[in-house]
Amino acid sequence: MEESRSEEQILDVPRGEAESPASQLAVEGRERLEKVVELCKRRGFVFPSGELYGGIQGFWDYGHYGVELRRAIRDFWWKRVVEEREDVVGLDSAIITHPETWVASGHVGAFHDLMVDDLDTKERFRLDNLRWQKEEHFWEAVKLLEAVGEEGFWQAVEERLGYIPASPTTGNHRFTPPRRFNLMFKTFVGPVEDESSLAWLRPETCQSIFLHFDDVVTVNRMRVPFGIAQVGKAFRNEITPQRFIFRSREFVQMELEFFVHPQDKERWFDYWLEERERWYRELGIRGENLRLRPHRQDELAHYAERCTDVEYRFPWGWGELEGIADRGDFDLRQHQEHSGKSLEYFDQERGEKYLPHVVECSAGLDRTMLVVLLDAYDVDLAETGAEARQAGRAEVEPRVVMRFSPRVAPIQVAVLPLRKNRHGEQARRLSAELRRYFRVEYDDAGSIGRRYRRQDEIGTPFCLTWDNQSDEDQTVTVRDRDSREQVRVAVDKLRDYLEEKFQL
Amino acid sequence: MEESRSEEQILDVPRGEAESPASQLAVEGRERLEKVVELCKRRGFVFPSGELYGGIQGFWDYGHYGVELRRAIRDFWWKRVVEEREDVVGLDSAIITHPETWVASGHVGAFHDLMVDDLDTKERFRLDNLRWQKEEHFWEAVKLLEAVGEEGFWQAVEERLGYIPASPTTGNHRFTPPRRFNLMFKTFVGPVEDESSLAWLRPETCQSIFLHFDDVVTVNRMRVPFGIAQVGKAFRNEITPQRFIFRSREFVQMELEFFVHPQDKERWFDYWLEERERWYRELGIRGENLRLRPHRQDELAHYAERCTDVEYRFPWGWGELEGIADRGDFDLRQHQEHSGKSLEYFDQERGEKYLPHVVECSAGLDRTMLVVLLDAYDVDLAETGAEARQAGRAEVEPRVVMRFSPRVAPIQVAVLPLRKNRHGEQARRLSAELRRYFRVEYDDAGSIGRRYRRQDEIGTPFCLTWDNQSDEDQTVTVRDRDSREQVRVAVDKLRDYLEEKFQL
Repeated sequence: MEESRSEEQILDVPRGEAESPASQLAVEGRERLEKVVELCKRRGFVFPSGELYGGIQGFWDYGHYGVELRRAIRDFWWKRVVEEREDVVGLDSAIITHPETWVASGHVGAFHDLMVDDLDTKERFRLDNLRWQKEEHFWEAVKLLEAVGEEGFWQAVEERLGYIPASPTTGNHRFTPPRRFNLMFKTFVGPVEDESSLAWLRPETCQSIFLHFDDVVTVNRMRVPFGIAQVGKAFRNEITPQRFIFRSREFVQMELEFFVHPQDKERWFDYWLEERERWYRELGIRGENLRLRPHRQDELAHYAERCTDVEYRFPWGWGELEGIADRGDFDLRQHQEHSGKSLEYFDQERGEKYLPHVVECSAGLDRTMLVVLLDAYDVDLAETGAEARQAGRAEVEPRVVMRFSPRVAPIQVAVLPLRKNRHGEQARRLSAELRRYFRVEYDDAGSIGRRYRRQDEIGTPFCLTWDNQSDEDQTVTVRDRDSREQVRVAVDKLRDYLEEKFQL
Repeated sequence: MEESRSEEQILDVPRGEAESPASQLAVEGRERLEKVVELCKRRGFVFPSGELYGGIQGFWDYGHYGVELRRAIRDFWWKRVVEEREDVVGLDSAIITHPETWVASGHVGAFHDLMVDDLDTKERFRLDNLRWQKEEHFWEAVKLLEAVGEEGFWQAVEERLGYIPASPTTGNHRFTPPRRFNLMFKTFVGPVEDESSLAWLRPETCQSIFLHFDDVVTVNRMRVPFGIAQVGKAFRNEITPQRFIFRSREFVQMELEFFVHPQDKERWFDYWLEERERWYRELGIRGENLRLRPHRQDELAHYAERCTDVEYRFPWGWGELEGIADRGDFDLRQHQEHSGKSLEYFDQERGEKYLPHVVECSAGLDRTMLVVLLDAYDVDLAETGAEARQAGRAEVEPRVVMRFSPRVAPIQVAVLPLRKNRHGEQARRLSAELRRYFRVEYDDAGSIGRRYRRQDEIGTPFCLTWDNQSDEDQTVTVRDRDSREQVRVAVDKLRDYLEEKFQL
């Protein structure tokens, strides 16, 4: 999951961009992002990490609804990519991986940003964050660096471009030569701190999949074409983490490496592209906000022969959600060379020995969560007079509603006693029963209207209310979050009724 | 989840300890551990991490069946501790936590081992790993260190004990004074490596729960008594990781911090002790292998007022599986003092403001997995002659069977066509249908007997076979792993039939 650098430079989010037909009060652009961030904090989806001590930039903690939403997204990925398939197996490897892994993968040598220090203020900046007059100038400078080396760098820049870019904080123009700053977090394993104990937190989950390719062939008797999937934390010491949970320093990847015969890879690439796009639609993301963007030849990473991004229309423009890449045999070949052990695969059917090629589907859980949140956020004017009265208001008010797919909504079912004292016991019993199958919340605080509003804000698709009639005939009202229609359903039919809605 | 140091010193695992009545060919002690380790590697439950490059000590990777087993255990914990309860919410916080957290918790100051260097060979040893004539001598030496300081240490040891312990590798007796070695993995956040950017990988998941105590009260409207639960990775730079996945450097904790009024804590402590022990029984762990062991006053950690371990009868003796601790208000008080922000809770019902006390339930996923594996391993002689013939053997042979609870078995249902060509298509269709609800494997390779053996070894509780009769009447045979009895069940009744067995 590597992103193009230039995307980061689009810092301005235009207001009131395109309108979404599904949204009744369109809240777009920067305002939409702000509203979602605010709701996430207010309802405890996402907290800044370490806030009690002033915060730590680029790290986020997930509160109750955030955890449940993430679990649901992650499990839905695992279900579709691993558990429902015969040709994919799972892996869960350590975050601190054998350091040779990152030499072979190229991360030790080439996974870096260019940094300069302001000679006067001693502030440190990423080279691309200086005030270049045009973005292309930065890329020209990078080429110059390769040509002339570090020491002659600034002189060459001035000769070529006619200026030296300014510091973004002071306007200064005097900097040290650029130095490579590796984006992997380092640590030391064992009691001695030196080169021999140096290790890194993995910057991507896929490499340990390649390390175990041969184990999986042997132990799980998998035959090409097959895949190995992993969900887990990855770490990148980003200089400028930004845009909420879009780019953080600690994040969860969901990666599939699918091993194929070189001749079959076009077909499998297309197959996975289609599968993965469908997955986002199944997740409830609106089609108008999704697109596929093939990489141009000049933006391909060094390991990729072909790459297409699934992109989302973020408030700041289209951005990468998932990368589907043809990695060729780059990784297996690198690990074969560095380890001195053959990773060739013997294909019995073809009677042929070869290094399989890899189609990679690399998604991020945090980013997917952000997209689910952004896409679900809606404001709805269509309150009825009766609802307003139930909520104790004289006039109808806009409601905020998170239109999560019932499949991943953090709370799938809320159980509400109409009156706490009179119906509380029965409603609580019902909620305990339903908790066996669904993510359930019991809520007896405040008026029914107020409780509906609260559930709308956390995106609960169904609210069940236990009332007087329930005591008599063992039915409850089921209120639909989106249509706000209410139907009565018998308690002993609830599981089937809801399961169908959740498309289990 | 802190363990007493002395436990580690029991390195010898006696052979043929007590016998388990459930086991027909009792395999106990060290042999049992060896068999489980071997099976884990052979069937791909657990791989040594980075083996392609010679391995990295103290880190493990989990293969397909291992991942599924871990997911199932973790989800079962989450279901019981969070989702089925009204009074517990979840949290998922960053591994790299604000560094001040670990100053407040005491980890920066006091979470260390004592290390010495051999003056001749420069090898580094943990002080307790030198050859002390008695274990108590080590503890006496620790007290001496506190009394006389580092420089006079070895002289004081010789005077008191009459000897200086030998190096475990060379027999040397000349060492540097002991130095404190912090067990947290360090790293640097941001582009500058200095004191100001120093951060640690969390050595336990509970601290970020304390940091968010106030958020959860505010945002989730939780009222004491209530709990916050978290499952996540923790890291400890153990000098001597050992015993397979029992003590590794990277592991997953499952922790619940339950906040109570100080007067109620005895009651809640007892409640959670009972709940947690029941959970292990529900997981299928045999009662004879579980016990509760209250800590003596002199072994309590500095933060604990009371602690009881759930212990398991490991092959090397009884050992900690989970710690239930009364942490008092130690943590909230520490974070309140270090942050300067009040963490007091206003109890509306009592009309009282106070720092809640905490009952902690601290379990480890890897250790629980090890216990599930050890407890499930069995060898069974009761093969029938018919089964032997099905497997192509003239004589009956012992079978290895992992008696996992159906709740957490990595594969819950195997679907087998009697003959691949004739029944493959229908069996595959059935497996696809069942994958919607269960963890399913389709297997058409080898004789039915051989496939049963394979499924027994990975602990699959039910094997469904599609045969000629299935084509006619849409029933399959369901073969029970433990009784090896076979019954015919109609395909359209399978989901209900299996769900009941799995106690969903």
